[in-house]
Amino acid sequence: MTNHTLLIHCPDRKGLIYAITQVVFQNGLNIISNGEFVDKENNHFFMRAEVSGDIDREKVLRELHSALPEQVFVELLPHQKKSIVILVTKEHHCLGDLLLREQYNDLNATIRAVIGNYTTLQPLTEKFNIPFHYISHEHKTREEHDAQIRETINQYKPDYLVLAKYMRVLSPDFVKRFSGRIINIHHSFLPAFIGANPYRQAYERGVKIIGATAHFVNSDLDEGPIIAQNVIQVNHTQNAQDMAQSGRDVEKIVLAQALKLVLADKVFVSNNKTIIFS
Amino acid sequence: MTNHTLLIHCPDRKGLIYAITQVVFQNGLNIISNGEFVDKENNHFFMRAEVSGDIDREKVLRELHSALPEQVFVELLPHQKKSIVILVTKEHHCLGDLLLREQYNDLNATIRAVIGNYTTLQPLTEKFNIPFHYISHEHKTREEHDAQIRETINQYKPDYLVLAKYMRVLSPDFVKRFSGRIINIHHSFLPAFIGANPYRQAYERGVKIIGATAHFVNSDLDEGPIIAQNVIQVNHTQNAQDMAQSGRDVEKIVLAQALKLVLADKVFVSNNKTIIFS
Amino acid sequence: MTNHTLLIHCPDRKGLIYAITQVVFQNGLNIISNGEFVDKENNHFFMRAEVSGDIDREKVLRELHSALPEQVFVELLPHQKKSIVILVTKEHHCLGDLLLREQYNDLNATIRAVIGNYTTLQPLTEKFNIPFHYISHEHKTREEHDAQIRETINQYKPDYLVLAKYMRVLSPDFVKRFSGRIINIHHSFLPAFIGANPYRQAYERGVKIIGATAHFVNSDLDEGPIIAQNVIQVNHTQNAQDMAQSGRDVEKIVLAQALKLVLADKVFVSNNKTIIFS
Amino acid sequence: MTNHTLLIHCPDRKGLIYAITQVVFQNGLNIISNGEFVDKENNHFFMRAEVSGDIDREKVLRELHSALPEQVFVELLPHQKKSIVILVTKEHHCLGDLLLREQYNDLNATIRAVIGNYTTLQPLTEKFNIPFHYISHEHKTREEHDAQIRETINQYKPDYLVLAKYMRVLSPDFVKRFSGRIINIHHSFLPAFIGANPYRQAYERGVKIIGATAHFVNSDLDEGPIIAQNVIQVNHTQNAQDMAQSGRDVEKIVLAQALKLVLADKVFVSNNKTIIFS
Repeated sequence: MTNHTLLIHCPDRKGLIYAITQVVFQNGLNIISNGEFVDKENNHFFMRAEVSGDIDREKVLRELHSALPEQVFVELLPHQKKSIVILVTKEHHCLGDLLLREQYNDLNATIRAVIGNYTTLQPLTEKFNIPFHYISHEHKTREEHDAQIRETINQYKPDYLVLAKYMRVLSPDFVKRFSGRIINIHHSFLPAFIGANPYRQAYERGVKIIGATAHFVNSDLDEGPIIAQNVIQVNHTQNAQDMAQSGRDVEKIVLAQALKLVLADKVFVSNNKTIIFS
Repeated sequence: MTNHTLLIHCPDRKGLIYAITQVVFQNGLNIISNGEFVDKENNHFFMRAEVSGDIDREKVLRELHSALPEQVFVELLPHQKKSIVILVTKEHHCLGDLLLREQYNDLNATIRAVIGNYTTLQPLTEKFNIPFHYISHEHKTREEHDAQIRETINQYKPDYLVLAKYMRVLSPDFVKRFSGRIINIHHSFLPAFIGANPYRQAYERGVKIIGATAHFVNSDLDEGPIIAQNVIQVNHTQNAQDMAQSGRDVEKIVLAQALKLVLADKVFVSNNKTIIFS
Repeated sequence: MTNHTLLIHCPDRKGLIYAITQVVFQNGLNIISNGEFVDKENNHFFMRAEVSGDIDREKVLRELHSALPEQVFVELLPHQKKSIVILVTKEHHCLGDLLLREQYNDLNATIRAVIGNYTTLQPLTEKFNIPFHYISHEHKTREEHDAQIRETINQYKPDYLVLAKYMRVLSPDFVKRFSGRIINIHHSFLPAFIGANPYRQAYERGVKIIGATAHFVNSDLDEGPIIAQNVIQVNHTQNAQDMAQSGRDVEKIVLAQALKLVLADKVFVSNNKTIIFS
Repeated sequence: MTNHTLLIHCPDRKGLIYAITQVVFQNGLNIISNGEFVDKENNHFFMRAEVSGDIDREKVLRELHSALPEQVFVELLPHQKKSIVILVTKEHHCLGDLLLREQYNDLNATIRAVIGNYTTLQPLTEKFNIPFHYISHEHKTREEHDAQIRETINQYKPDYLVLAKYMRVLSPDFVKRFSGRIINIHHSFLPAFIGANPYRQAYERGVKIIGATAHFVNSDLDEGPIIAQNVIQVNHTQNAQDMAQSGRDVEKIVLAQALKLVLADKVFVSNNKTIIFS
């Protein structure tokens, strides 16, 4: 008897919750927590429930499909630890934070491997007995490099890829193959300061607050669905480097918050936005 | 055809959402938004739904009662503007903010009257064409004063009383008669700095953050269920008076946030805590 | 004997504070508070001091000029309440907040007049016995409209102009004439969502935080020096209108914070950024 | 030629900055940054300056002493990395965060050693090649235990002691010997929830915000001067354990912020409060 998370979305119509909970009840399952949301602009219904009980997964899915509109999306996921592979370049703060969380069971995921386009973070990764793969991008096209990374990732079959300050743009083909499964931490409060050197941009603009954004990656760089954002106050005494240092603390916390939500199957994506059940 | 808010809480058991949504569905109602919460420590179920449709209120309530555990609490409230009476002493910032919001339909309530134990805020209140009642506490026992206030309140039959910096303690009898219907803004981040002169206390203690707390009033002063809290950063250059000035902005925003939730029937109280559906 | 604020900036060199405080000391003045900042990128020195004592303003200024580099900027301002004129369109929240603050001496300025391109806010303004000037923009070029506004402003000789949700772009000539003296509240967390309908933009982008920015106006719309910014968390359950409502509270608080700093002569502008002494 | 930080405090009187900057200037030093603060309630002057130049430390101190009031405190500290010893019990999050920061030069201090009253954090510490001393408190009086810890600390002569979730009360004698040099992270928003199990207390009270406080330790537990505080929003869906998890992120960030300030000699303590120059 394991707990499961039930994820459903479909066009809205009268009686959906009743129809769904009927199937749940008649299969002897108990609803531990439940959330619904209707996107009124698009007339679309979302539901997430945690259910417990002795479950016949196939039967429940079959009955839900027959009780709900044809275009329904239904998923029934057992509660089990997800696995991730992390991509990095040279900055340590997000990777270090994730390694510590995993080590002390604060992450709700297993880190299968870390892949870096430099060797900078190999010693840190190996301190925590996680395999590190150095895959240089030098003398390779983006497609060649991405293909090599993909091959390494495929050895591990992770649920999610985490870009923990991976400073290269991924090819559209790569993104497509891991669609909805790549999470990035962007070093700015999107949509401000898109692109390179955001702390320099923030400093030049004289902002009083900087932030960080964790988002799913889609083919438009910096334009994927936002999962979590946070900010920190800055002032005129801080130069671009000081702002970057302040920013690192926001980045690592925001990335961890976003992963916590995603790894608990609490995040739907719809129309390039996230719907998050807490 | 009006919209209604359905509020239910009862001991938790399997099938509650199914039983409830069955009644809702069979009465031809549509669920616009829905939230549930189970307090696992106390094994208690809470649900709030907004429903639309041509409703036979008595029939729906009767059917819900027969479908649910005996100790159930059920309420089915039409969507309509609530009314409030505001109690004040001398400070203007919360009252002024509420008067402006009401005037511009940002409050979701009608202010029926303002009662003050000083005349200080009479001119401000009357600018907005709201009746002001001056009920001095001088030469009266607390009970006499409270009885006079109660009499004035009763002319207006408000849904809620709002203590917008009313600086006197209400008698237990008064609190009991308006049980669950009095909202106070406390000038500190409860439970810190309970009691008088919290900004002086905060200054003396050298805190780096001050806050404000909106809560329901119960017989224990400063101990009622918390509805909303917020904070602001302070520093050593601010004296107690400067902190109080910073605090005023937090107070008025927190009080307005709390009222917004309460007036939309989004707040349950249970075990001296609030459960808030957003 | 009045207090004065001394504002100085000039190219940095050794001994500046010593040279300045020598003049201050030899004129028998007491320094109540003092702050310096050196912009290292531009090698520029900034200082703000509050001094008390029986002052010979002309003499002090003369001596400071002779003790400091030729390109120095020196200002010695008596502590006195500033005056402002407010420009509005139809939204009430910032204007209402400022009117209340002025009425209760929380603003540190006198509101001389309010100018609106609609009559919407005339009744609110007049409740507080402040003159309201209705200057419609209809059937006028921008230049004609701005000229008429300028004429009205000039009757009042205000220290600062405050754009409290004035929804029109000012002509470059107008901005130039009040250079460094116009403060705007921008309904977004600049530099994100520049331009029209920022809450709709924020909603479309699915952000998790929205903000507001108070800034000086220069000829580049939305690009002037930022004085204050703040943010509030939002989520997927809020539509563009809900976000705008949340945003209004941030806007009014941020505008008031910025005015508090500017009206106390705490803000320098340099290289399109602000340097703020607290 | 090294940079130095000049720290001065004394009873306030006219001409102090002039007198101090005269000595600085006549010794050929350049002031890179400077801050003053006058505590008006106690008529006390504080100043912190960073100076650069070829310095004769003894001469400068002598001249400052003769130019300033007799009861002056003067310190002239070379810019050099401080050293710390960390005390821990079983929780990893603050220690892990500090180890990572030190490893990547984000801490501005050398961690000389970690001392634990359990062995739980020995493997983590040793991953980073820092000596770990296990000093059990079992079968010892508090005084015996503290004496043993002190002996170990004395081998390392650290500038500061950091209590990174060290869950034992230190004896008054121990505190006295390291007076002004012990920094603690308290798992609550002081002065709320003093004492044991603050997250359980926060949960029971139903607060909507939790926080953390970094402070100097004095003989009154939880009552020392506050250096930094921060908060995070919580809600009714979180139990005491969830709140503790949220709290851990706040704790590690607040502790790091406080250390950053202390290790840069930016914090004065006066009347059980901190004065912080930024």
